[in-house]
Amino acid sequence: MSKSINIAITGAAGRIGYALVFRLANGDLFGTHDVVNLRLLEVPSAMKSLHGIQMELDDCNFTTLGDVVITDEPEVAFGDADYVFMMGAKPRLKGMERSDLLQDNAKIFASHGRTLGKVASKDVKVLIAGNPSNTNTLVALSNAVELNSTNFTGMMQLDVNRCKSIVSKHCGVPHTTINDVIIWGNHSSTLYPDLNHAQVKGFPAMDLIDDDWYVKDYIPLVQDRGHSVIEWLGASSAASAANAAIQQMKMWTGKGGSQRWESMAVLSSGQYGIDSDLVFSFPVRHARGELFIVDDLDIDEYSLSMIKLSESELILERDEIKHLL
Amino acid sequence: MSKSINIAITGAAGRIGYALVFRLANGDLFGTHDVVNLRLLEVPSAMKSLHGIQMELDDCNFTTLGDVVITDEPEVAFGDADYVFMMGAKPRLKGMERSDLLQDNAKIFASHGRTLGKVASKDVKVLIAGNPSNTNTLVALSNAVELNSTNFTGMMQLDVNRCKSIVSKHCGVPHTTINDVIIWGNHSSTLYPDLNHAQVKGFPAMDLIDDDWYVKDYIPLVQDRGHSVIEWLGASSAASAANAAIQQMKMWTGKGGSQRWESMAVLSSGQYGIDSDLVFSFPVRHARGELFIVDDLDIDEYSLSMIKLSESELILERDEIKHLL
Repeated sequence: MSKSINIAITGAAGRIGYALVFRLANGDLFGTHDVVNLRLLEVPSAMKSLHGIQMELDDCNFTTLGDVVITDEPEVAFGDADYVFMMGAKPRLKGMERSDLLQDNAKIFASHGRTLGKVASKDVKVLIAGNPSNTNTLVALSNAVELNSTNFTGMMQLDVNRCKSIVSKHCGVPHTTINDVIIWGNHSSTLYPDLNHAQVKGFPAMDLIDDDWYVKDYIPLVQDRGHSVIEWLGASSAASAANAAIQQMKMWTGKGGSQRWESMAVLSSGQYGIDSDLVFSFPVRHARGELFIVDDLDIDEYSLSMIKLSESELILERDEIKHLL
Repeated sequence: MSKSINIAITGAAGRIGYALVFRLANGDLFGTHDVVNLRLLEVPSAMKSLHGIQMELDDCNFTTLGDVVITDEPEVAFGDADYVFMMGAKPRLKGMERSDLLQDNAKIFASHGRTLGKVASKDVKVLIAGNPSNTNTLVALSNAVELNSTNFTGMMQLDVNRCKSIVSKHCGVPHTTINDVIIWGNHSSTLYPDLNHAQVKGFPAMDLIDDDWYVKDYIPLVQDRGHSVIEWLGASSAASAANAAIQQMKMWTGKGGSQRWESMAVLSSGQYGIDSDLVFSFPVRHARGELFIVDDLDIDEYSLSMIKLSESELILERDEIKHLL
């Protein structure tokens, strides 16, 4: 029997929201059998535009779309939500620093976290992509006292994909032959895109990759990919961010691929010596319906120093918004 | 064995293009088995942005995406193209009249038609959505002397969907229970959204619908839907247009639904008394790999007068660009 699934999307009229909503309505997350009900949340000033999006959804005649609710009230959007995509945040414009975004967004995510705790399904999966996404995730899960921290992940799949697309181009191999990359840390320019455990066509990736390229080219390319896209596109990544959100949610529901792990930003409980009150990107494995941090990898000294750099940034971010935790 | 399919998209960096490209790359047209190669065409001033879209495509790690070529040369984009989505045209902004668009676009579509004739696959399916789409289609097929007129259709599926979404809301039934609507004529405010042959839940649609609502509300609602979306969204339909383009191309390849017919804009050969050198939306049926105009329907007097109104508009449009035919 087909199920009816409630999906809430914040920032639904934003560019990422616009790219995401129609793919979800088209069954790209749950397939053509189940029906999805969409609850689209926006700020009051974007409600008119959101009404236009609802008209366009009506005009698609999707067979997998149930009812659509548009609202500026988080209680309505998150009520009985099974899945939540938090794409909304103050946008990061060209040249803008992450710190500018931190305070305002933390307030929004604290409030959303409290509401989610009160009205969402107890099994809700909340994926947070609005930047700064790790710290926003920390704020949200800290304020959702009725939920578990495992109800929340911060989006890292876009970084995983960027890493694969860069390695794919460098090595001249299809991205499908690249497995088990790891993104560590913050979804920011301090992330560490680790290839030490990765395979390319079944061989250790590092056997094919020059140390010099790894340090001087590859790592900065992945870290700065978001800025490069802005530079070319004239706007931040939208379709690729929406796509990554769907991929990460798929993996979270156990419909991932054949890799040994995925990378997601989850609450640390001290793995690899990372501070235990940070939302940090780790390799995670899906088992018995839950995510577990893969905690037994050997990390070399260089990698550890890079991971620690990203941890430092997250500690600074947390210090700035600790009154909201 | 999986096939590799060349799909060209014009206006690829525009809003409809951006909505379309990622859905095609995701396998939404040909499924997860075949690989699609994308050839994305833009004007020189949009090439930087198109490069950003190519980066985003790389960053999606789609398994159904082959190679991606971005270009401002139609010869490159259309070379060996199996399917072409012509979404590019001078955009129709708020308050702008269709006649303003006519001349400039006709020149573009004449040139594209000539190039398609020279370099595309002889079996190419060219779907034209750039407005004014019927007359652009007429110009393109007239200039593609090496191809048949049956290689071209103008997009009407968005109007079909809009019609169904309006009837669905009015009758309080799912759109999936509405079958065999017909859109006649021009993709413009003169289109005639005929329900006289339609069924709702298997019953004649007109048995459920008041004549007064049909004439005074329903027809103008469908005709003006594009303007209404612009009014609310603050921009023209993009995701729903991209979706309709995929649906129409699917039907054209014989992967349509269970309806008795679809509506597409094709070259008239005089059916229902329509001038034989117009690209006109008719009910069409798919058989033995080809489209046939359903030419044996009884049309009442009111409907015929509405159809003739749209024909008059198309004749006027054709008169303005006849030097390009």
